[in-house]
Amino acid sequence: MNNESYIAIVGGIPGVGKTTVINEALKIARAENFDISVIIYGTVMMEIAEKNYNVKHRDAMRKLPPRAQKEIQRQAALEIAERAKGKVVIVDTHFTIKTGIGSFLQGIPSWVSEAFHPKLLVLIETTAEEIKKRRELDTSRARDEDSLDLLMEHQLLNKIVAASIGQKTGALLLVIPNRQGKATEAGRVLFENLKAMKA
Amino acid sequence: MNNESYIAIVGGIPGVGKTTVINEALKIARAENFDISVIIYGTVMMEIAEKNYNVKHRDAMRKLPPRAQKEIQRQAALEIAERAKGKVVIVDTHFTIKTGIGSFLQGIPSWVSEAFHPKLLVLIETTAEEIKKRRELDTSRARDEDSLDLLMEHQLLNKIVAASIGQKTGALLLVIPNRQGKATEAGRVLFENLKAMKA
Amino acid sequence: MNNESYIAIVGGIPGVGKTTVINEALKIARAENFDISVIIYGTVMMEIAEKNYNVKHRDAMRKLPPRAQKEIQRQAALEIAERAKGKVVIVDTHFTIKTGIGSFLQGIPSWVSEAFHPKLLVLIETTAEEIKKRRELDTSRARDEDSLDLLMEHQLLNKIVAASIGQKTGALLLVIPNRQGKATEAGRVLFENLKAMKA
Repeated sequence: MNNESYIAIVGGIPGVGKTTVINEALKIARAENFDISVIIYGTVMMEIAEKNYNVKHRDAMRKLPPRAQKEIQRQAALEIAERAKGKVVIVDTHFTIKTGIGSFLQGIPSWVSEAFHPKLLVLIETTAEEIKKRRELDTSRARDEDSLDLLMEHQLLNKIVAASIGQKTGALLLVIPNRQGKATEAGRVLFENLKAMKA
Repeated sequence: MNNESYIAIVGGIPGVGKTTVINEALKIARAENFDISVIIYGTVMMEIAEKNYNVKHRDAMRKLPPRAQKEIQRQAALEIAERAKGKVVIVDTHFTIKTGIGSFLQGIPSWVSEAFHPKLLVLIETTAEEIKKRRELDTSRARDEDSLDLLMEHQLLNKIVAASIGQKTGALLLVIPNRQGKATEAGRVLFENLKAMKA
Repeated sequence: MNNESYIAIVGGIPGVGKTTVINEALKIARAENFDISVIIYGTVMMEIAEKNYNVKHRDAMRKLPPRAQKEIQRQAALEIAERAKGKVVIVDTHFTIKTGIGSFLQGIPSWVSEAFHPKLLVLIETTAEEIKKRRELDTSRARDEDSLDLLMEHQLLNKIVAASIGQKTGALLLVIPNRQGKATEAGRVLFENLKAMKA
């Protein structure tokens, strides 16, 4: 039995169409009878927080001491690595998260990224103009009104962080441009790279 | 008693106005009765070099064997981390330093950045044109006449290095654009992020 | 006897003129009677694979289990570090390698870059237009037809990876623009920085 995990960490700033691209990849995978699971990192963190820290919602988790939060992050990664054994798994997360006062928080700092033993790091990107347009159309979520420069900066920081994780872990790095109307093509590229992990 | 240190490493290439922005942040801190100390990393390195290596000036320090220099760098970081206990401290330093033959030296290589346990990494940036203008006006220091491309390159390398330290240490990352005539705003952003470290 | 190694890792994407710049640096070194060796990392990997894994050609090496390939990578780095004792050595390699399905493979992941203990990391770069033109002229090698954007992206990823290795190892970082018709100047910059490693 193959016990190795095939984890792909997939990130992209709000508005790049990350979920759409992942769903396109899953559609192709189903058509080809290739098994891929998606795990949302934040959801597993909440499960760990509830079980081990008796925390009931996200805001309560953010109020835990930093040490506890770090421990939850790490345990969630180990839990995901465990669940991923023998499987191809997309971990849906963020390389960095913009805080309300302009700083960037590491989504998967080294003690997390190393616990994942990822084989692939994926950045979904698009132009700043496209992101801005999509954020304006999406009224369901309260999203920041970032300048075009800041959107590019955030994408650059994610690229740096992902490449730096790649250097440390040896994971392959994949940048997928998700152009307007081309989500199926982007999903195809993602699928081909997920499939190749196990080849 | 709170023994944790709240270290923010602040860097920026010569001419971005780093000192001005730090001073603006300190002014706001005093007005708000919030305690912030500034420690210049190079100064503490010289103190360590004098005490432990009987070195009298910077040139003599640079002539020590690399191993000794690395040890001084690390000891200075540990000394600062010790002094910073329970306090909010700005460590004024450089992420990279351009050498006379065009290469870039790491200002705080991994064994230093990890000894700091920083909570925040701050990059003060501005446009290449602005930097060039400020360097020309500042006749007090002998500064390189770098091309605009090289100034952008140096800022990019600092961003990469800072984001890479952030990935490793989990510190927050903050990029502050110090636009001409906007140093007070930049200082305000710095102050808000320093204050938030302890929140 | 000086047993320290002076390793410079030199990378650049296909078409930047890496070999030309290295040869220009060697020409100057010979004229100045300064000893520099060039070791091609991939060649040493093949030697290790042949000796320890009975592998006869590159394709067979790529078919080994990932664990074996990683071990070969690491052993090759240790072998080079051993051969480099007391010497100035250029390790000719790639920071990242573009795969056939668009992802980027780490040429010298952390367990390799750390085994090298490099003193200098060199990126040879040029404009995307120049690279494209050179790739079109070079009919001897089957090279990808990458878009200009992709060529810039690949160079950016290499810069991130190199700077991230620099942060970890403390090695100096040098970016050399190899402009059309200026390879001798580029070779001179490389030589000066190689010479300075031992100063």
